[in-house]
Amino acid sequence: MEGSKFDFVTAADMSMLVDFYELTMCASYFESRREEMAVFDVFIRRLPPHRSYFVFAGLEQVLWFLENVKFTSEHIEFLRKKRFKQDFLEYLKKFRFTGEVWAMPEGTIVFPEEPLIRITAPIIEAQLVETFILNTVNLQTMLTTKASRVVCAAQGRPVIEFGLRRTHGMDAGMKAARCSYIAGAEGTSNVLAGMKYGIPVFGTMAHSFILAFENENDSFKAFVKTFPDGSTLLIDTYDDLKGAENAAEIAEQLEANGHRLSAVRLDSGDLLSLSKSVRRILDGHGLDYVKIFASGDLDEYAVDELIRKGAEIDAFGVGTRMSTSNDRPYVDIVYKLSGRIENGMYAPSMKLSKGKPTLPGIKQVFRRRNSKGQYVEDTIGLDDEKVEGEPLLRKVMEDGHVTCRMPSLEEIRASVAENLSTLPEKYRRLRGALKYPVRLSRKLQQVRRQLAKELKRNARISLN
Amino acid sequence: MEGSKFDFVTAADMSMLVDFYELTMCASYFESRREEMAVFDVFIRRLPPHRSYFVFAGLEQVLWFLENVKFTSEHIEFLRKKRFKQDFLEYLKKFRFTGEVWAMPEGTIVFPEEPLIRITAPIIEAQLVETFILNTVNLQTMLTTKASRVVCAAQGRPVIEFGLRRTHGMDAGMKAARCSYIAGAEGTSNVLAGMKYGIPVFGTMAHSFILAFENENDSFKAFVKTFPDGSTLLIDTYDDLKGAENAAEIAEQLEANGHRLSAVRLDSGDLLSLSKSVRRILDGHGLDYVKIFASGDLDEYAVDELIRKGAEIDAFGVGTRMSTSNDRPYVDIVYKLSGRIENGMYAPSMKLSKGKPTLPGIKQVFRRRNSKGQYVEDTIGLDDEKVEGEPLLRKVMEDGHVTCRMPSLEEIRASVAENLSTLPEKYRRLRGALKYPVRLSRKLQQVRRQLAKELKRNARISLN
Repeated sequence: MEGSKFDFVTAADMSMLVDFYELTMCASYFESRREEMAVFDVFIRRLPPHRSYFVFAGLEQVLWFLENVKFTSEHIEFLRKKRFKQDFLEYLKKFRFTGEVWAMPEGTIVFPEEPLIRITAPIIEAQLVETFILNTVNLQTMLTTKASRVVCAAQGRPVIEFGLRRTHGMDAGMKAARCSYIAGAEGTSNVLAGMKYGIPVFGTMAHSFILAFENENDSFKAFVKTFPDGSTLLIDTYDDLKGAENAAEIAEQLEANGHRLSAVRLDSGDLLSLSKSVRRILDGHGLDYVKIFASGDLDEYAVDELIRKGAEIDAFGVGTRMSTSNDRPYVDIVYKLSGRIENGMYAPSMKLSKGKPTLPGIKQVFRRRNSKGQYVEDTIGLDDEKVEGEPLLRKVMEDGHVTCRMPSLEEIRASVAENLSTLPEKYRRLRGALKYPVRLSRKLQQVRRQLAKELKRNARISLN
Repeated sequence: MEGSKFDFVTAADMSMLVDFYELTMCASYFESRREEMAVFDVFIRRLPPHRSYFVFAGLEQVLWFLENVKFTSEHIEFLRKKRFKQDFLEYLKKFRFTGEVWAMPEGTIVFPEEPLIRITAPIIEAQLVETFILNTVNLQTMLTTKASRVVCAAQGRPVIEFGLRRTHGMDAGMKAARCSYIAGAEGTSNVLAGMKYGIPVFGTMAHSFILAFENENDSFKAFVKTFPDGSTLLIDTYDDLKGAENAAEIAEQLEANGHRLSAVRLDSGDLLSLSKSVRRILDGHGLDYVKIFASGDLDEYAVDELIRKGAEIDAFGVGTRMSTSNDRPYVDIVYKLSGRIENGMYAPSMKLSKGKPTLPGIKQVFRRRNSKGQYVEDTIGLDDEKVEGEPLLRKVMEDGHVTCRMPSLEEIRASVAENLSTLPEKYRRLRGALKYPVRLSRKLQQVRRQLAKELKRNARISLN
């Protein structure tokens, strides 16, 4: 059983979590003695169907990566076998990231084409960090965005993240808990996320627990003997309504001993009608304080429909579909060169590939609010341009060291809630949301036009 | 920057990558002095649309987890704050998995309801390992299945896994490489997967490399100076056909110096018509050996269509859609109690929840072949039943120790290829595949009928 221990990606190995072409490009830059500064933007190309915004997340991990990335002698020895030359390997041995980073705060509501992170660094450094940055921001922005939709749909009812068994591995399991929490979930079932991030953990029992006893009642009794307060009993293993009666009996016994049952859980069947029947049963026993917790194949649409139809559900456990972002399990996020600085001179860059153009220039995003403080319009402009609105990109790293205070998860969570409430409802409804206006500034349009003209003039390029 | 280092899940922490309810259930089992053996099955509930089989993967990681899972004093201290009692915490301190495991070999073609792994262990141990097992098998089975479809669609043309920037985090990035490789991909762009698993790594250049030079030609020259042999030039940054001409020029210069360009890469636009035009350009320069490599939003359907329409593509780079299994980013995989053994007596269990029933009994899967060796039908039967066909579940662990030889990735890869070729085409075509027949043995049906009757007789359960 040797090999498997390698499945745990350690901090020491994160530099190698890189697409091979980053290394081949860098080797060639190195040989060509390219030492200019490059400017790269992280941005999202487009909105998927049924999404109208993104919640930017993952910056904390990106900055930690940039501060700590390095190559070990094991890495160097591996790369030696892959055609890399000695002087480049020597360079990698001493590699550290020395660049400057501007970024939006985690939890910012963002839209396509807007730069989320801007990296300015010697071109080799800027290139080598691409893969990890994209991987991190892709995952966390996707998860936070999806979870924010579920939280919005629940209209204030608690949402607990239950996805660990179906997240894409261990890292995604941790990030699903982190991202759901900053999106407004109350907590997670993931115990390690509770320990490492301080996120509240929740959970009670599975069907197997019920099945392990002679009958449902015995299983309930055993459970509340161990946890007399705050328990949630799963009532759908055999028959939901009989289960609700059994749970009510338990709740009454607990009450008699000065304890209280917290909730019952429904995990299958028609949650709408079951929740109403179960509510009646519980209320019939005077157990109006016992809550109904629902789970099972939920997402924002199911939660929304249940609430609109008047389901008697007090809280939701949402797993697989939220924690895999099942209707769109990735974000069209990219990392693109927007310019180079050589001998103090800045030269913008852009790509003309069909359907995949990029924006040149050192850019800033300006967000304008109306008199009520609500978001009205964003403008992508140049960094040194005077544009109305709050500039969203801030300097967070200089010479490879973090220069900003890192917010706590609680702070990011509060800011997501604030930001979402500041985005007018018409731009964030689950279905048929309007497209939030994002325009390009006059100067940015100029730079783009002029660069396209130059590229076309270039003898080696014939554009159709 | 304190918190972020915790993002790396280490081997020491994997026991805590668990849903909280596993721990609460176990605490209650512990207090109830439940020491019987429990039998759990890992199985997949149903096929998603457009899938007709699964390729089982992840067993190596599951077994390594079971051999090594334990709780550290940091874990115990965290759990102490979460209402767990001292004697249970003492139990966890000494916890190790002592069970017996039967499983199908990695790379087996499997179908819904078939037990893939069967765990027999003291009930607390069997319960505590659920979350990690499901997470691992879900991810790897999903990825291997999806990749096998892409590999089949490519009809022998090499497929390279390019998904690292969009996989769900670091762990998924490693598993995407592992799973694509065992599914038949030629390699990956993930350098760490190359180092840790020995998978071939591939990759050349991104658009940013082209943009970093005055013009495309200069970028190509710089690259082949560093890598004169085996390079692939990306030709779509400005204009594909002009790019192909530039690449041809470079190839001719290389030839004059005794080197050879390996390929050109197309990453955007209409790959079908572009590939034909580019092939003509290359052939016009006598460069029939220069291959055309295509990438960009590919999946099994796109690859299939390109090949059917006669695209001149020699190899495919497939990323996001394959490595996130975008059309179905999870498997409906579950871990269900099928019985208990107390004082040497076996008692089957089953769950009657609507739409989520389970199969009781200690089960085996028997696969029948026809005279040509092709798979004909599976039967899920009882372990001690005499059923025609090869039994697929084998003992792989006893008293918590691996008892089988673990196959290498190469061996698993060969076995996937062999298994897929043994599954008749009608059961594995991309669209409209027939449902492979899986039946329940007579004895299993008997056990199920009888148990359902008993459950209904049970006074506490009123079934509708």
